[in-house]
Amino acid sequence: MNKQTKLYDIGVIGLGVMGKNLALNIADNHYRVSAFDLDVLKVSGLVNQAEKEVGPHRTLGIKGCDNLVEMLADLEKPRIFVLSVPAGKAVDGVCQALVEAGIEQDDIVVDTGNSLWTDTIAREEKYRHQFTFFSCAVSGGEVGARFGPSLMPCGDKKAWHRIQPIWEAIAAKVDPQSGLPIERTQPGETVTEGEACTSYIGPAGSGHYVKMVHNGIEYADMQLICEAYHLLSQGLGLDALEVSAIFERWNKGSLNSYLMEISADILKQLDPVTSKPLVELILDKAGQKGTGLWTAVSSLQIGCPAPTMAEAVYARALSTQKTQRVKLSGLLSGPISPKNGLIDHTKAQIFIDQLENALYCAKVSSYAQGFQLMAMAGKEQGWQLDFAKIAKIWRAGCIIRATFLQSITQAYQHAADGALENLLMAETFAVALSQKQHDWRQAVSQAVLNGIPAPCISSALAYYDGYRSAILPANLLQGQRDFFGAHTFERIDAPEGEKYHLNWSSAERKLHKVN
Amino acid sequence: MNKQTKLYDIGVIGLGVMGKNLALNIADNHYRVSAFDLDVLKVSGLVNQAEKEVGPHRTLGIKGCDNLVEMLADLEKPRIFVLSVPAGKAVDGVCQALVEAGIEQDDIVVDTGNSLWTDTIAREEKYRHQFTFFSCAVSGGEVGARFGPSLMPCGDKKAWHRIQPIWEAIAAKVDPQSGLPIERTQPGETVTEGEACTSYIGPAGSGHYVKMVHNGIEYADMQLICEAYHLLSQGLGLDALEVSAIFERWNKGSLNSYLMEISADILKQLDPVTSKPLVELILDKAGQKGTGLWTAVSSLQIGCPAPTMAEAVYARALSTQKTQRVKLSGLLSGPISPKNGLIDHTKAQIFIDQLENALYCAKVSSYAQGFQLMAMAGKEQGWQLDFAKIAKIWRAGCIIRATFLQSITQAYQHAADGALENLLMAETFAVALSQKQHDWRQAVSQAVLNGIPAPCISSALAYYDGYRSAILPANLLQGQRDFFGAHTFERIDAPEGEKYHLNWSSAERKLHKVN
Repeated sequence: MNKQTKLYDIGVIGLGVMGKNLALNIADNHYRVSAFDLDVLKVSGLVNQAEKEVGPHRTLGIKGCDNLVEMLADLEKPRIFVLSVPAGKAVDGVCQALVEAGIEQDDIVVDTGNSLWTDTIAREEKYRHQFTFFSCAVSGGEVGARFGPSLMPCGDKKAWHRIQPIWEAIAAKVDPQSGLPIERTQPGETVTEGEACTSYIGPAGSGHYVKMVHNGIEYADMQLICEAYHLLSQGLGLDALEVSAIFERWNKGSLNSYLMEISADILKQLDPVTSKPLVELILDKAGQKGTGLWTAVSSLQIGCPAPTMAEAVYARALSTQKTQRVKLSGLLSGPISPKNGLIDHTKAQIFIDQLENALYCAKVSSYAQGFQLMAMAGKEQGWQLDFAKIAKIWRAGCIIRATFLQSITQAYQHAADGALENLLMAETFAVALSQKQHDWRQAVSQAVLNGIPAPCISSALAYYDGYRSAILPANLLQGQRDFFGAHTFERIDAPEGEKYHLNWSSAERKLHKVN
Repeated sequence: MNKQTKLYDIGVIGLGVMGKNLALNIADNHYRVSAFDLDVLKVSGLVNQAEKEVGPHRTLGIKGCDNLVEMLADLEKPRIFVLSVPAGKAVDGVCQALVEAGIEQDDIVVDTGNSLWTDTIAREEKYRHQFTFFSCAVSGGEVGARFGPSLMPCGDKKAWHRIQPIWEAIAAKVDPQSGLPIERTQPGETVTEGEACTSYIGPAGSGHYVKMVHNGIEYADMQLICEAYHLLSQGLGLDALEVSAIFERWNKGSLNSYLMEISADILKQLDPVTSKPLVELILDKAGQKGTGLWTAVSSLQIGCPAPTMAEAVYARALSTQKTQRVKLSGLLSGPISPKNGLIDHTKAQIFIDQLENALYCAKVSSYAQGFQLMAMAGKEQGWQLDFAKIAKIWRAGCIIRATFLQSITQAYQHAADGALENLLMAETFAVALSQKQHDWRQAVSQAVLNGIPAPCISSALAYYDGYRSAILPANLLQGQRDFFGAHTFERIDAPEGEKYHLNWSSAERKLHKVN
């Protein structure tokens, strides 16, 4: 035994970008961390960084360890492990290794990766008799993990109560009055006031589902900003610095968000090599890691319209087909050559203002899709999701953080229980969109007429127009289905659920009530 | 033993709408059918119908049987069974029952349901040592099954050679010169000339995949027509008969298709009860059975942009939320009240003509998505799909049959092997869309400005504009991903595959080459 009087509070397994920064964040908040990675260089890297960050005023309680048996001996019982390994097989690999190292029934393993929510449900079941498999989705990337992420925990409620103090300490904080983040940017800093961006989401899987939808919304947010950039650069012929200035202005208004802020920043960045705007040297092929497509897939399976999220996923897929695009750009005509900006320059400022409103409206439409998806999934799974709380913990720490989420929080707080089936029903958004929809239409129309693809901004508008249509042409569609497949239809003048079939292929075409 | 000298050629199991009509079709083509269903009324129903259809000039070789053991005894060896039961568990239920009844290794079971393609792959594997599990996707609904469907067989090639004569006899036929269907509408008729709408697709699963994409395309085709109807009825204020007349005219041009034909017919149909146009009494809530959403899900998973198919699935989902729509129609504003037609009446004919071209372009865009999806799936699965043949067997019998498919057939026949990565690259379509894109933009712009949702027509245009964009704003998106997630980016002035990361959160912002 060593001379240590106090054992370690928490074990962090997996010291990639996220795990390393979570470990430093936890240690900053005065919890003692035992850390392990299969890659010994990552362990020593963390320990070195911790030593570098320790000033004369404090010590940082991080210890690197060589294996899981050592880690088990390090930790106070019942133990808490934080897993930060790639989603998928690696999670089960570590769980199995922990079982072999002697993990006990009361110990808690918290998976913080981007796991598929159904895998999380299966794992809670699978490991139930060996330890408590708990799960927490993390948003905020590298910086969030280090100085305050948004945390979406789910699983056994008793386990939550044990980890809750640590979670509330390390999470991002929000000023409850303004809804704005309380910034923390330096090693050693802690923030103890404000509302912590973490809240128990629900049973196993629910937190990962909510995080998955967060990422779907993030995909849409990113693509919406890119479409605005494309319309300004290709449509108006503005350069990166000019677009950056517009984004900076927008970021002071209702579009204020982390993604808008960093987009303005990126557009300003010059390439260290050529001194040209860096963005113009970045290859236009977008990568993706899967959570956006999971969201779109889930929306299709559940039957919840989420076209803007699906379009964002498709836009990334389309971008990767650069060779095809270059070939087709020579074969397919557009309105006119886009070289010098398509949109009438004398009306540039009008268009820019319209686009600002279009972006706001599309964003609301996209969030409406995401929140409705969570509501429908929650209903299907029997989760009692609290959407005011979910919006609250997204106000800081995570990638989609925005002042806008304060409005969503309030919309759900003001709504009676379950009364807000769709965010578009909230008065604040219904009024704002009704006022701005004219500009939204103008911007989409300009995109369409000038041949600049804006799939997310325009699908969001079609969603808006779809939901405000008391009458849709699905009557003809039901007629078609009944014609070729005898799938039956309902009548507007008959009780709900009564099915009819017309005998389309016979000469007399009789109408039958089916059952 | 009975006195029969010849045993039966084929056993049909499952006598719902599809199974019953397939049995009658097979018998019309002089094959002797033994038929079984768990529901004895369905068996007697088929036998009665067969007797009714037998004229003095012929006999119809259909025998109902009481159980599978009897069916096994009825059939020539090696036996051929056609399964027409609901996709899913029922298929395995029947397979298991056939094993218990004594099915032999050389016997062939042909699943003709709407099975998920991955289930088909699993089943071929599962039953390999008990019998030959073969599979054939069927399109054409009730009437197609009776008088000539489009058949997409896949699996063991030897099994295909055994069933091929029957399949070619019962399939729809096309005049090879015109590409038009050779109609068969009467019991007892057979068509022996022409090209049969069946062709071996490939290994297990491939035929169901191709049929799944057929259905995805079908969803989009149906929704596109519905959007045109909506724009004409809500936008121009035309009544059902007026829209029917426009559709009839369109059906004589490049939009000619079965779905356009029946849509015109449906719109003309008066309600037997009220004598109003029936379509106006049909409730606007669309049903769906899953193949459309499978297509969209697969496109997301494979990374093939297919937004028009996804929008078609979402449009059906949105239509079912009638209560929400009615509520939101009172809360959310549009341009002006749509009651008397939004679009300037003096320009009605111009708009109608633009819409015709828009519909054609959107259709081409949607088929381009579907064919590219099959190509990408085929590549992933190692199937050698022959797209000229696939387009050929869709020219008759199936729901999306259209003269248009003759052009697709020719486009693939004219292309060198594998050269046609995207249908939009075919000269015939590139030229047509380049000519008509102006009208397409005008029609979408009208929809957008007038507040009439046209998600499929407009997503198809965004797809077109995306693919003809040599430059997309995914450069900014890669910048965003690198900023918050260190996901790296490539440079346009560096070799492909070289990854870079900018240290965005440090003061000096150095550029690193990664690995």
